Parts: sequence; structure tokens; C-alpha cells
Amino acid sequence: MKKCDVDYTLYLCTDRDLMSTDTLEEAVTQAIEGGCTVIQLREKDCSSLDFYRTALNIREITRKYHIPFIINDRVDIALAVDADGVHVGQSDLPAKEVRRILGPDKILGVSAARLNEAKKAVEDGADYLGVGAMFPTGTKTDARPVTMEELKEIRRAVKAPIVVIGGINLNTMDQFKDTGIDGLAVVSAVIAADDIKEAAKEMVRRFRENG
Amino acid sequence: MKKCDVDYTLYLCTDRDLMSTDTLEEAVTQAIEGGCTVIQLREKDCSSLDFYRTALNIREITRKYHIPFIINDRVDIALAVDADGVHVGQSDLPAKEVRRILGPDKILGVSAARLNEAKKAVEDGADYLGVGAMFPTGTKTDARPVTMEELKEIRRAVKAPIVVIGGINLNTMDQFKDTGIDGLAVVSAVIAADDIKEAAKEMVRRFRENG
Repeated sequence: MKKCDVDYTLYLCTDRDLMSTDTLEEAVTQAIEGGCTVIQLREKDCSSLDFYRTALNIREITRKYHIPFIINDRVDIALAVDADGVHVGQSDLPAKEVRRILGPDKILGVSAARLNEAKKAVEDGADYLGVGAMFPTGTKTDARPVTMEELKEIRRAVKAPIVVIGGINLNTMDQFKDTGIDGLAVVSAVIAADDIKEAAKEMVRRFRENG
Repeated sequence: MKKCDVDYTLYLCTDRDLMSTDTLEEAVTQAIEGGCTVIQLREKDCSSLDFYRTALNIREITRKYHIPFIINDRVDIALAVDADGVHVGQSDLPAKEVRRILGPDKILGVSAARLNEAKKAVEDGADYLGVGAMFPTGTKTDARPVTMEELKEIRRAVKAPIVVIGGINLNTMDQFKDTGIDGLAVVSAVIAADDIKEAAKEMVRRFRENG
């Protein structure tokens, strides 16, 4: 998986508590079959061993479909399962340290809500940015949403791929038509859908149509 | 810090919720001044960034006193702060993976409650074992205590240094007199003491006296 070839169109962050399937493995498989282009495994409140085991399972699926596999926060688990990369937020290990531990070849994503965070992330070695939360959501309630103006400002300032996150769904996605973003990061819009595959398919179709 | 030179006599595992001082930095300093020979930083329910920042502070103290500094569970944080090693339990990343990520020179400690766990840990690259819980404790309530017979069996089976853990204090420590262990791992017996330095001093004195 070459970093420069990553297609960020529909980037799924997993959430066990929201998934409509019995297992995370099913949810991820359906999401990929629907067209999700990146899978980020996000696990909270489980042991490192359980996180590792889940990561091994998801890695197998993503490898089968040749989809990049990103681990949230835990660089050690990403290294242990040889994931394609790590995503860190502003409360995780600093991007600079993560880049040093990961080496130059793995994908590093960083969450940025403000222009200064975005610039610093890229300076510190980020390959792509997750910008948001764009809208108030149930999964992340802590911060004031990023405005469209701020998003455009970040887009102008950095060349790295940008995915928007936070309340991205079929009702909100068209607002990003002319923002120059590279993809949509979704949680519930896909993983909580009754038909995960169909939900992913429709979002991918519409994003590509929007150009 | 050469791995083979580590003195395991009094091995402190930190616990913010139990410490008698205002800050963890004070607690660790007093513990080292009292004679603690290893410091393990254990943080739960905090962000990776907070864990990392605390680890940087504790690393500075342990370096000043030339005391080995071990991080509990989080291999990535150990790498980020260049700690001397990592300690993993049976619900953390498998020892074999941790050894691979850490490289050969860092200290790897593994918790083992049974003979098979102890043997496997050493096979997988453990430099020392934390055997316990030896007694029921407030900090770890999940497992049946290790019996003295099991401890002796582990001691006979493995050459790696062994520290006992779980309910180790001034009242219980003399029971390990003739077991051939290398040290005592403590949490509350030191960090919750009114006088941390004095508590550590007394345990070290008595352990050395016991031969």
C-alpha cells in the first residue's frame, strides 16, 4: 500500500456501539463492499489484547480487499499488526513522536479543527488531515464545529489530503461540493445504517458525482 | 541502563488514586529517595497525551537518580519517551509482539500468575516476571492469589528475575524470605504511605536483611 495512492473518498471510522451488524468484521466487510476506501479501527474501553485481536481480524479483511487499514491512537497496536497507518487526535501522542516511532512509510493522519493545528500536523509529518467536527454529532460532543470558512482556509493552507468528519451523512455531504476536500469520514452514517453496503455505495456515488 | 544490571529489590508501580502526595512527581521522588530501585508508571483512564506528558516528567526524575523507568502496557508511550522498558499483563499486547516492537535492548516485564504463563513469557522475550497477585488486594481483584507453592515452582522453572506483586507490604514481605525472589513490587504499601520515603526505606532494609 503506497501512501500516495490512497483514495480517501469514503473513510470509515468504526464504532462497536453504533454498528447495525452483530460483529465488527461483518460491518467492515459490508462497508468495503459498498465502496469504503479506508478503514480506521477505533476501540475504546477494551484491553490492549482485545484491541490487538480485533485489529488482526480487521487487518485480514482490509488486506483481502486491498484497502488501507488505519489504527486510531494506539501506535503500538498498529506496529504489532502491521497496519498501514495510525490516526491521532489532539489528545493523543504528538504527531511528531508518532512519525518517529512509525517510520517514514506508514500513513499518519491527524485530526485538526483549526488552521494552526492543521499546519502543525503537516509540519510534524501528517500524510492527511481529518478536519472536524463539521457538525455537532453524538460521537464527538466536545468541541465547537468547524465552520465552512475555516475548512476552506485549511484547504488553501495545506496540500495534504483532507477528509471532513463529524456529522457527515447523505443530508450534509453536498455542502462540501466546492471545498476541494478529498473525502468524507463517516461513523454512524455508514456503520449504523440498516444496510451498510447500500449506505456506503450511495455516499461514494454521490461524492464522485459531485466531483 | 544495562538490562542485566537492574536491581529489582523494591519495584514501585504508581497509582494516582492511592498516592499520599499532591503530585505523582513528588511521590516518585520520595520513593526513589527511600530506596525504590525501579519505577513503573501505570496510568488508566487518561488520554494518551496526558500519559505521555506524565511519562516525560517521570522519566526526567528517574534519569536524574539513574533508576530504571518502565511503562505499563503502552509500548508506544515507552518508545515516545525513550523509557527503559515496558511491563505487560496477560490482557495487554502479547509479549512476543512487544519484544519485536521494542527491540532487544529495552527491558520487558510480564505478569504471570501460573507456571505456564511464566514459562511462555520468558520464551517470548521477558527479562523479568511479576508474579502475583500473591494476596488479595484492592488494586487487583480479578484473580485467585498465587500460592507459595506455585511461586516456588515458577522460581525453580525460570532463571529470569522475579518480583512478587499483590498485597506486598511490611506485614507480608517476610513470607518470601526463602523463596529466591529478586524483589518486591509494591503499590499502596509505598505510594499510599504517609511517609513514602520512610516506607520504602524500611522495606528495602528488611528485604536486604532477609538476604
